[in-house]
Amino acid sequence: MAFPLIPGVSGSDTASGPTIGNFRLDNGMEVVVIPDRRAPVVTHMVWYKVGGADEPKGKSGIAHFLEHLMFKGTEKHPGGFSKQVAELGGQENAFTGHDYTAYFQRVAREHLAAMMAFESDRMNGLALTDAVVDPERNVVLEERKMRVDNDPGAQLGEEISSTLFTHHPYGTPIIGWEDEITGLSRQDALDFHDRFYTPNNATLIVAGDVTEEEVRILAQESYGKVARRAEPPPRLRPQEPRQRASRRVTLADRRVEQPILQRYWRAPSYRRAEAGEAEALDLLAQILGGGPTSRLYRTLVVEEKLAASAGTWYGGTALDETRFGFWAAPQPGQSFATIEGAAERIIADLAANGVGEAELERAKTRLIAEAIYAQDSQSTLARYYGATLSTGGNVESLQSWPQRVAAVEGEALRRVAQKHLVDGHSVTGLLEGLA
Amino acid sequence: MAFPLIPGVSGSDTASGPTIGNFRLDNGMEVVVIPDRRAPVVTHMVWYKVGGADEPKGKSGIAHFLEHLMFKGTEKHPGGFSKQVAELGGQENAFTGHDYTAYFQRVAREHLAAMMAFESDRMNGLALTDAVVDPERNVVLEERKMRVDNDPGAQLGEEISSTLFTHHPYGTPIIGWEDEITGLSRQDALDFHDRFYTPNNATLIVAGDVTEEEVRILAQESYGKVARRAEPPPRLRPQEPRQRASRRVTLADRRVEQPILQRYWRAPSYRRAEAGEAEALDLLAQILGGGPTSRLYRTLVVEEKLAASAGTWYGGTALDETRFGFWAAPQPGQSFATIEGAAERIIADLAANGVGEAELERAKTRLIAEAIYAQDSQSTLARYYGATLSTGGNVESLQSWPQRVAAVEGEALRRVAQKHLVDGHSVTGLLEGLA
Repeated sequence: MAFPLIPGVSGSDTASGPTIGNFRLDNGMEVVVIPDRRAPVVTHMVWYKVGGADEPKGKSGIAHFLEHLMFKGTEKHPGGFSKQVAELGGQENAFTGHDYTAYFQRVAREHLAAMMAFESDRMNGLALTDAVVDPERNVVLEERKMRVDNDPGAQLGEEISSTLFTHHPYGTPIIGWEDEITGLSRQDALDFHDRFYTPNNATLIVAGDVTEEEVRILAQESYGKVARRAEPPPRLRPQEPRQRASRRVTLADRRVEQPILQRYWRAPSYRRAEAGEAEALDLLAQILGGGPTSRLYRTLVVEEKLAASAGTWYGGTALDETRFGFWAAPQPGQSFATIEGAAERIIADLAANGVGEAELERAKTRLIAEAIYAQDSQSTLARYYGATLSTGGNVESLQSWPQRVAAVEGEALRRVAQKHLVDGHSVTGLLEGLA
Repeated sequence: MAFPLIPGVSGSDTASGPTIGNFRLDNGMEVVVIPDRRAPVVTHMVWYKVGGADEPKGKSGIAHFLEHLMFKGTEKHPGGFSKQVAELGGQENAFTGHDYTAYFQRVAREHLAAMMAFESDRMNGLALTDAVVDPERNVVLEERKMRVDNDPGAQLGEEISSTLFTHHPYGTPIIGWEDEITGLSRQDALDFHDRFYTPNNATLIVAGDVTEEEVRILAQESYGKVARRAEPPPRLRPQEPRQRASRRVTLADRRVEQPILQRYWRAPSYRRAEAGEAEALDLLAQILGGGPTSRLYRTLVVEEKLAASAGTWYGGTALDETRFGFWAAPQPGQSFATIEGAAERIIADLAANGVGEAELERAKTRLIAEAIYAQDSQSTLARYYGATLSTGGNVESLQSWPQRVAAVEGEALRRVAQKHLVDGHSVTGLLEGLA
């Protein structure tokens, strides 16, 4: 799912949609203002155009580790500012992706200036000591243990991704490989911060009860004073070579209670796709496996009772070639092979015969409706803008998304299924229990 | 197979073996002299401690491309010196590995000084123009097309390696991925040369009718005058994370006439292994699949007639974790599954019950004999030294190899089979025809 923004649905704005503010500070930092006057709150986010896929060789996990260390304080705010945010009644969080790293707070509108002061201060520089860095490295290692080592499904997910992307860094988990996390140093974090956390590599998103002009003044007083420290390199990652063989990974673990079958195909992202292809892939994911009326669900779950659940998804918001995924949870006694065969027949049928008009219209309605609902959440909307602007899109491409989805013709779905959902572009993963 | 050098078998030398000369020039270049007085010829090799696994991100193939460009000339020798070598009746060649790149000539002993002058001159610097680089890039792309695109077996080999080493650069083919070769520039080659082709990153090996003193004088006059241009970085490649799932790749192509089953396991190299482990793996490869008396061959080929051929191999001469491999060519009508099952039973039996004394002795004799025969070839012997010294070994470790092999106990083979030949460290590759 991707890029929602339907004109004319947001709060007090007119039928032509909320007027999105979009400008740059002198130091190159881009600013997006999304007015939303329903409540006197604001969502304040800073997105850096750097993530797990931009890490130096052998330093996997440094983007995520730095995200942790950003909460450890600066000269001006030793110990960080989380306590102050909490005392002001705010919420805060951060997340690291392959293509971006983001920090956000949600506060009453009168505290926006304070958040900008805090956030621009830690963009400007961190005060890290080994006494802080060393225990935090253990926190991250523990996080990896909890999330991956204790979860066979997560382990298989890493395996599928790393055998699908053997060369492109999307095959490396965002949290990093254990032995490389262990080797990450204070200096690695500072170097990464210096190189990438410069205002010309960042996007400020403010959504909420605020005007563009108010944000402009506050941003100039805070972010505007951060020096442009570096020119981040072009984001050219090693591209995945052509896949020649069909690939299959199997993980058996006694902790597995529900077996799962997954298949990931390589598919172009919005950034990399030909015109209309990514929108068609979003619709294809709806028709094949988006909820209980989808083709795969109806056949595998409802009619043939082979699986307890099944679905498809498409990760279109990415800088480089991305993934289209299928998953199914077999009913007891049903083999992976039976489910794979049935799913392959359903996909082959769509690739050969296309989709029905009514089915396509329903999928468009559902997809666009999801986007409309998403607007109801200030922070979801802000996230859409942040993710889009960090992966090669812009305000216009996000705003025109519903029209582009609406314009997709059935033939385009047949074409992307034929082109991308083929065995030579995929890895099949099987998660099974041990008797 | 690895590291042969048996004392007392080479030419006119005494029972304590040929006296190997081993010293360094002032600029840090290591020199090895292997006297061999049987004929008035010398083998002259320069080994650089850099290969495909040392390439910058996104520049796969640059080590091999530079190897090609090294023949294109310098200021002193525009157009290179291949013609002169041929006119002197010499032979020359070059090769690129993951861990090293080597250049060699075999000439009459009186031309050694000329070879050193040529070779040290192109170590000192290259005169490359786009007019030379651009067509040579096409030569390499054509080489890749011939070797890989036209050979389904080679394609599957790339797939097996890249899904076994998803993170470590051994998963990247030495020739490079096509789209990255296309992007390699003259400047990339010059940068790589500048950084790695410095005398302190090179080993000179001279084998043949020459004394250590003669080589020292000649080397000082030639290589000794090349400035130490750079300090090559430590050879720390990203290590492969723990594998959690069993992995399988299948390639079907109508050009395949003989199906092949392969399995590669991750295994420590001589450089990375615990004491005695690598020697045990070399012996294990002999006992399991080294020729017609090996366990796998006897069962799969001779007794059960499941396969037309079968064998195992171990790539111990590597800087980092390497591969132990099994392959079998099924007889018509025999399934991959039957052969896999039989091979797994044979391996499991060895891992459970170990090897027999007589069988172990035969394997040692065979392995050590291969090393003795290898000494008969001046260039093979020189290659052993070059490869060993470029992957973390030294003259002593190479010379003590036969004694270390002789000292391996049967229990060690059982242990390395149990530890390394397990499903969780492997990729299985199937090459099949299309009806």
